[in-house]
Amino acid sequence: MRLTRVYKFSASHRLHAPSLSEDENQHLYGKCNNPYGHGHNYVLHVTVSGPTDPVTGRMINPTTLDRHVEERVLRVYDHRDINSDVLNFEGVPTTENLARDIARRLCDGWPQAVPVARLERILIQETGRNKFELRINANN
Amino acid sequence: MRLTRVYKFSASHRLHAPSLSEDENQHLYGKCNNPYGHGHNYVLHVTVSGPTDPVTGRMINPTTLDRHVEERVLRVYDHRDINSDVLNFEGVPTTENLARDIARRLCDGWPQAVPVARLERILIQETGRNKFELRINANN
Amino acid sequence: MRLTRVYKFSASHRLHAPSLSEDENQHLYGKCNNPYGHGHNYVLHVTVSGPTDPVTGRMINPTTLDRHVEERVLRVYDHRDINSDVLNFEGVPTTENLARDIARRLCDGWPQAVPVARLERILIQETGRNKFELRINANN
Amino acid sequence: MRLTRVYKFSASHRLHAPSLSEDENQHLYGKCNNPYGHGHNYVLHVTVSGPTDPVTGRMINPTTLDRHVEERVLRVYDHRDINSDVLNFEGVPTTENLARDIARRLCDGWPQAVPVARLERILIQETGRNKFELRINANN
Amino acid sequence: MRLTRVYKFSASHRLHAPSLSEDENQHLYGKCNNPYGHGHNYVLHVTVSGPTDPVTGRMINPTTLDRHVEERVLRVYDHRDINSDVLNFEGVPTTENLARDIARRLCDGWPQAVPVARLERILIQETGRNKFELRINANN
Amino acid sequence: MRLTRVYKFSASHRLHAPSLSEDENQHLYGKCNNPYGHGHNYVLHVTVSGPTDPVTGRMINPTTLDRHVEERVLRVYDHRDINSDVLNFEGVPTTENLARDIARRLCDGWPQAVPVARLERILIQETGRNKFELRINANN
Repeated sequence: MRLTRVYKFSASHRLHAPSLSEDENQHLYGKCNNPYGHGHNYVLHVTVSGPTDPVTGRMINPTTLDRHVEERVLRVYDHRDINSDVLNFEGVPTTENLARDIARRLCDGWPQAVPVARLERILIQETGRNKFELRINANN
Repeated sequence: MRLTRVYKFSASHRLHAPSLSEDENQHLYGKCNNPYGHGHNYVLHVTVSGPTDPVTGRMINPTTLDRHVEERVLRVYDHRDINSDVLNFEGVPTTENLARDIARRLCDGWPQAVPVARLERILIQETGRNKFELRINANN
Repeated sequence: MRLTRVYKFSASHRLHAPSLSEDENQHLYGKCNNPYGHGHNYVLHVTVSGPTDPVTGRMINPTTLDRHVEERVLRVYDHRDINSDVLNFEGVPTTENLARDIARRLCDGWPQAVPVARLERILIQETGRNKFELRINANN
Repeated sequence: MRLTRVYKFSASHRLHAPSLSEDENQHLYGKCNNPYGHGHNYVLHVTVSGPTDPVTGRMINPTTLDRHVEERVLRVYDHRDINSDVLNFEGVPTTENLARDIARRLCDGWPQAVPVARLERILIQETGRNKFELRINANN
Repeated sequence: MRLTRVYKFSASHRLHAPSLSEDENQHLYGKCNNPYGHGHNYVLHVTVSGPTDPVTGRMINPTTLDRHVEERVLRVYDHRDINSDVLNFEGVPTTENLARDIARRLCDGWPQAVPVARLERILIQETGRNKFELRINANN
Repeated sequence: MRLTRVYKFSASHRLHAPSLSEDENQHLYGKCNNPYGHGHNYVLHVTVSGPTDPVTGRMINPTTLDRHVEERVLRVYDHRDINSDVLNFEGVPTTENLARDIARRLCDGWPQAVPVARLERILIQETGRNKFELRINANN
């Protein structure tokens, strides 16, 4: 059994690789390289798996997962600028790196925060036209 | 090749574990424990797999699957109260147990009703904020 | 300028007119007359109009409207059974009467709760297949 | 006959009224006042009306409208920061003022760019939870 | 009170004005002029208005409207080619003319088929990017 | 890491197996066998996987994939009739065979057009009610 819960946050970013020239950045990222940034309504899907408790009929209490996502991810990203506001973000704030950063934040403190369930996968939509999916391999 | 067909039904339920106290139920299920119940527009995704018939170009005739889902699931759940109307439902009517009950009903009589195709997976959305996915392991 | 905000709630109901016979009810409402009820994820659109404040650039502070809708409507309907839980509901709990009851609750205390803006319209979707729209004529 | 076409753009903004104190801004706009901004996937609906040409069966050639919206609006807003990039934007970049600015840009040069059809209305969604609608009164 | 019900049908068409040259057609309609046609999943919204019956709590019985739309419109258009299959279609099969033809078919026999309610409006989406709306003026 | 990008095209088709009789075709395909065809707004999801470039923070440049899909698939299918316009389509134009044909076209020239990333999966929705998913096994 796998349960996926869906969260939303609004953030801004600018794609710019510091090791590349202005021209290379412009060529590589196009409009996403515009100097003052732009933003999106991101949709985050968090998938967990595990056994169902025979007494409660639930795999997890959804408020447990919601609180962990709120504390570790939404509080950091919602209504923020990724380039300026998010501490320890590694690399250019592409959605690939965003997925990796969010996975790292969710894994941190996982077994304590959401016992029993395993974090399987996160999926992020930046717009309706793309989805980035990261399967979590580490034991958590 | 995998084919997923999407079905909808409207049902009501109340989450209440008979082995727990009123307080425990209220703490555990919150608003979902309200005494007179509430309801949802459920969305059910049924995924099957199999070879494509070279003459018809189809894996299955979709009306075959639709009839099986109608007879085994929609007739039982649509415009019903899960707590009062669904016979032999096991456990608290959480979406986890709902997925399990629907899987059991679909597997029952499967190879006769939908020959050739294998039942791979069911996925249920209770609201736009969650999805419950059950992979079917049993041979069918 | 008109602003529409969107709210969701989950509720159950049973359509049954007390002045009609069982047969008439069954013929009139079909599956919606099933004795133990069923439910929906309702979507409520609330539309207000008014001038934009030149200092704030806003017609209203959205949290003001959200609080009024929460207190007057969502607290009453969300995760409830309309037939059993909603006080003073007039008539059969069809979506037509639901729209009328919600409009009445929103108008009650309106100019104090949401000053400046006029309540223009409410629209309710019971499923993706229907929408019920009520324009508010009364001064508020 | 009215025709509505739908456009999308991604932009960032920060809500901050220069005539108010930091505390007032924080109290008024909440997270939308965060210093480095945030962003959205905006959805813009443009509605025009007019007679249908009996030869072509069309009110307008949709590419005519698309070109006008592209030149006047999308080129200005898409992948931009409203506070820093949009010239002559009047007031705090709320969606109310955004609607007004977009209407002004669309009206500019309208009868030449999109002959025959009248600009009736624009509607902007900042997120799935709100819609801002502006009816155009001026002759155009 | 206004009620809108939503219907879907799949059809194909080719835009070609017989009084224009091949070049003019190609210039005017672009890809929509491709000789063998193409198709869409159309979404039709039908809006009616009227008083609510105090006994039933309903404006109309929705099955009454559904049957009229099925007989007059869906049976004619669903899984059909508009150019070849629809009798008495007037003009090029643009969505503007499609809206007009559907309105004509719905008005035909209206007061008998759907008593009490007034046909207010039809709205057709050809794709998610456009909507065509026709207000019905005639008495019906 | 897996990236899915979403594309849309509008096409028409008629389901008819040449080796079967008229009656068998009518019985097998129902309305989809109507002689003059019908059409859909197809939605195509293309999923690729691969490592993220540490300099750019991206798995691929999305315009690289978009161009390949445009040249190999959209140019062939968008605003076309599958039965008449698509060269070398094998078998009845069901969505199963459509998925297979699109996969074949995408694999053709893949490692040159979209280096580094592996083509994992395509998924096609013909309507909101069904999805056809094909996992790509061949090395590409």
